[in-house]
Amino acid sequence: MPASGREPGAVWSVDPRTGEQREQVGTEATPETVDATVRAAHDAREALADRAVRSAFLRTVADELEQDRAELVAAADAETALGGTRLNGELTRTCYQLRSFADTVDEGSFLDVIISHPDADATPPVPDLRRYKIPLGVVAVYSASNFPFAFSVAGGDTASAFAAGCPVVVKAHPDHPSTSELTAAAVRRAAATHGIPAGVLGLVHGFDAGVELVRHPLVAAAGFTGSVRGGRALFDAAAARPVPIPFHGELGSLNPVWVTEAAAAERPEEIGAGLAGSMTMGVGQFCVKPGLVLAPAGAAGDRLVKALGQALGEVGAGVMLDHRMRENFVAGVAERAQLPDVEAPVRPGPGPDAHTVGPGFLTVPAAALAREDGAHALLLEECFGPVTVVARYADPAEAEALLARLPGNLTATVHVSGPEAEGTEGDTGLLARLTPLAGRVLVNAWPTGVAVAPAQHHGGPYPATTSTSTSVGTTAAERWLRPVAYQNTPDALLPPELRESNPLGLPRVVDGRREG
Amino acid sequence: MPASGREPGAVWSVDPRTGEQREQVGTEATPETVDATVRAAHDAREALADRAVRSAFLRTVADELEQDRAELVAAADAETALGGTRLNGELTRTCYQLRSFADTVDEGSFLDVIISHPDADATPPVPDLRRYKIPLGVVAVYSASNFPFAFSVAGGDTASAFAAGCPVVVKAHPDHPSTSELTAAAVRRAAATHGIPAGVLGLVHGFDAGVELVRHPLVAAAGFTGSVRGGRALFDAAAARPVPIPFHGELGSLNPVWVTEAAAAERPEEIGAGLAGSMTMGVGQFCVKPGLVLAPAGAAGDRLVKALGQALGEVGAGVMLDHRMRENFVAGVAERAQLPDVEAPVRPGPGPDAHTVGPGFLTVPAAALAREDGAHALLLEECFGPVTVVARYADPAEAEALLARLPGNLTATVHVSGPEAEGTEGDTGLLARLTPLAGRVLVNAWPTGVAVAPAQHHGGPYPATTSTSTSVGTTAAERWLRPVAYQNTPDALLPPELRESNPLGLPRVVDGRREG
Repeated sequence: MPASGREPGAVWSVDPRTGEQREQVGTEATPETVDATVRAAHDAREALADRAVRSAFLRTVADELEQDRAELVAAADAETALGGTRLNGELTRTCYQLRSFADTVDEGSFLDVIISHPDADATPPVPDLRRYKIPLGVVAVYSASNFPFAFSVAGGDTASAFAAGCPVVVKAHPDHPSTSELTAAAVRRAAATHGIPAGVLGLVHGFDAGVELVRHPLVAAAGFTGSVRGGRALFDAAAARPVPIPFHGELGSLNPVWVTEAAAAERPEEIGAGLAGSMTMGVGQFCVKPGLVLAPAGAAGDRLVKALGQALGEVGAGVMLDHRMRENFVAGVAERAQLPDVEAPVRPGPGPDAHTVGPGFLTVPAAALAREDGAHALLLEECFGPVTVVARYADPAEAEALLARLPGNLTATVHVSGPEAEGTEGDTGLLARLTPLAGRVLVNAWPTGVAVAPAQHHGGPYPATTSTSTSVGTTAAERWLRPVAYQNTPDALLPPELRESNPLGLPRVVDGRREG
Repeated sequence: MPASGREPGAVWSVDPRTGEQREQVGTEATPETVDATVRAAHDAREALADRAVRSAFLRTVADELEQDRAELVAAADAETALGGTRLNGELTRTCYQLRSFADTVDEGSFLDVIISHPDADATPPVPDLRRYKIPLGVVAVYSASNFPFAFSVAGGDTASAFAAGCPVVVKAHPDHPSTSELTAAAVRRAAATHGIPAGVLGLVHGFDAGVELVRHPLVAAAGFTGSVRGGRALFDAAAARPVPIPFHGELGSLNPVWVTEAAAAERPEEIGAGLAGSMTMGVGQFCVKPGLVLAPAGAAGDRLVKALGQALGEVGAGVMLDHRMRENFVAGVAERAQLPDVEAPVRPGPGPDAHTVGPGFLTVPAAALAREDGAHALLLEECFGPVTVVARYADPAEAEALLARLPGNLTATVHVSGPEAEGTEGDTGLLARLTPLAGRVLVNAWPTGVAVAPAQHHGGPYPATTSTSTSVGTTAAERWLRPVAYQNTPDALLPPELRESNPLGLPRVVDGRREG
């Protein structure tokens, strides 16, 4: 039974393993509710002004989430079917992320303090100038279906916005409304501990509420994780406002994987099995799922494909996040499978019962896929779920022709042989071909599993993201800040971050020299 | 005679002092020409890949411009009537800016190298990750009317794009096509010196060509300096593309100036005269011209206003950049002057002949301007030219009510008394009220004269700019870059910027510690 609800505007938690409604969580937010929620968030700005309060708050949010771990994981599993192991790991990651942003706040480099002392000899003369970054204001966060913790109410967008000093209003994903409410309650308990108004985290349900949110005059920026269609509609709304706002959306990605001939010859079974593991992880519901694999034609490639098929045979059917996604997956793979030149050695599609799907893969000649006649264009669109497309190339030129046709991606991967990895054999310009395609380039690894680290970049050319920023890693906070410079300002009037004596001990650049 | 041209699509250089056509510079670019120009720029990308070449190129551009100084200044003066002193200074600034970006390229911090070594204990585990920033691709630059050098063909947008490794196609401003062509020739000579194809700098004329440019699939980002109307149209076109691109536009700004009661009492004549100088500099044709001044009612404010009027009386009539601007100015001030409650102690408007304008100012009660009935909304829009609006406030609450009504600005200024500057008297939260309004906040100074310095920020809340970036100062290069992270990549395959041994000696952050 689909989640149609029993009254208009009712928001239900639904069990994707059965399709049954679990509980009514609330109702869809009216325009009045959205307005009140945004205003409450706006009023909470001052409470986040003190960086020490912000970092303590972020750490307490992590503590509160860990305290509620059992309840949160149970609710998320009941709503998403992602399983306890995965969800416990995701919650651990989410708490690590919150504490990591707390460290970022304490360390202070993200404020980007730059001081230029006066220089009367320059043309034009340089006055005393002191620049740092300040919070933009209320941030709207559109949470993801596939990460009920890490990219949801207390996920990376929210944590980075709090780190930047911005209150947040989250548009909950309809696939996990109970988890969203429980998480919001934990965040608000943490807020109360530090004397921060509960409005610092707003939570609204409903599609229309999401549109209302991005148009609200007091919303200063937005973060989004989801589909190309939904994300682009909100991006367009953000750009069309009387005062446009930054919209940091993560939309869709094929995440191409290029297996060189030498790599396929060296370890076909290992690569085939690794691919099966990566593409079926989380029932193929990762934004970085490898959705297109360039494998050589010929015997080595055949062995790789065979190993892939064998490994997939051992992966059981899985439950997707909701029934609509399951229907889209089943229809999407069927439509792709009947394209000319496409074969399905292991046919993906409906599972043994009405709630599951079975993983599989399609094959197509790379030359067909690279043709500009548009016949295979659908294969170059992301298909959410446990399927990948293996494009077989006859020679490196065919592979390169196909790479040149791809849209932007979050990741691009190459599997190379041992000698190729040494750079002594094959083409050392290998990475130069993948770099234009993606925000993260991997060698002999799989794109699933996005580490939280300072050097991470989770973003890429459109449609992977709608901006040049990242939504994972400590640099994600820069999305919610803007610089301001103070000119000729007496020390007593300056914010402490910019005073000459550096009372807060911040790292800064003074007259071109880095301090601290 | 207005610059109507003698044949369709002809591009004429016009003398604003007479309205006469000086010479035909070329023709408006057809879509085919725009396409060819963008493709030539795109093909020049590789030539900018080497940072040493980029910095040398930037320095040679400065050298070439200085070599042509006499010819460039003469052409610019003939086309813009800005005068030799100002234009010589602007050219010096432009060359300083080019060399400053060369230093930025050599120093390397802008690459933002961050390295995270593997950490198997993290959740999820952290692999080897190495991140830096790479050029976006071809940048479209829309040059400004009012800075034929500093915000034009070889101005800040172009210099920062070259610094980032991006080729540029400039849409020339119709007010100085000859200067634009001469500058482009100098840039291309510099390119030839370093073996860079001439296509690294494209130059196109014509309104339609500008629209074509922002829609071109190979254009990856755009920089714009101009009006709200023109900038917003191009911003909208950039956002509506199948693949949206970053559009860094600097549109319009009122640049409010708040004179406290104590400051007006302390030095009314100094502030009045300083205001007259700042608002008439360059015939009021600066994006940071103070266009709205909050001065107290009462005797001290009266003295300030009187001093302003006296100083303006000593400023002669001036020639604006073109006749259309002159007409807009004359019509704009006339429309504003007849609004209710508005007076014109020194009436701005047409000058003594058909080519000039005379400076002046309007006054209005702050309480009227702050009313939400919209009757005075026009006074809160920028009026390009030598006019400012003085809003008289009865008490600080009236001033604050008006400040709260203002749109975003490039600058916001406050003039305070000596004791207020010490922070011991008056309100130390003074700057907190101005900071939300602008990207640069000044105390006891005037916003005209935008220094080129690392701590500069030239941008602000919309409509001041369409992004959170700056178009002046060394951080301007970040607009044309995007991060990319390499995961698990053998050292031999990495770009040298990211290799473990740091062969280029770049400043970088490794596992959270800053090196170099």
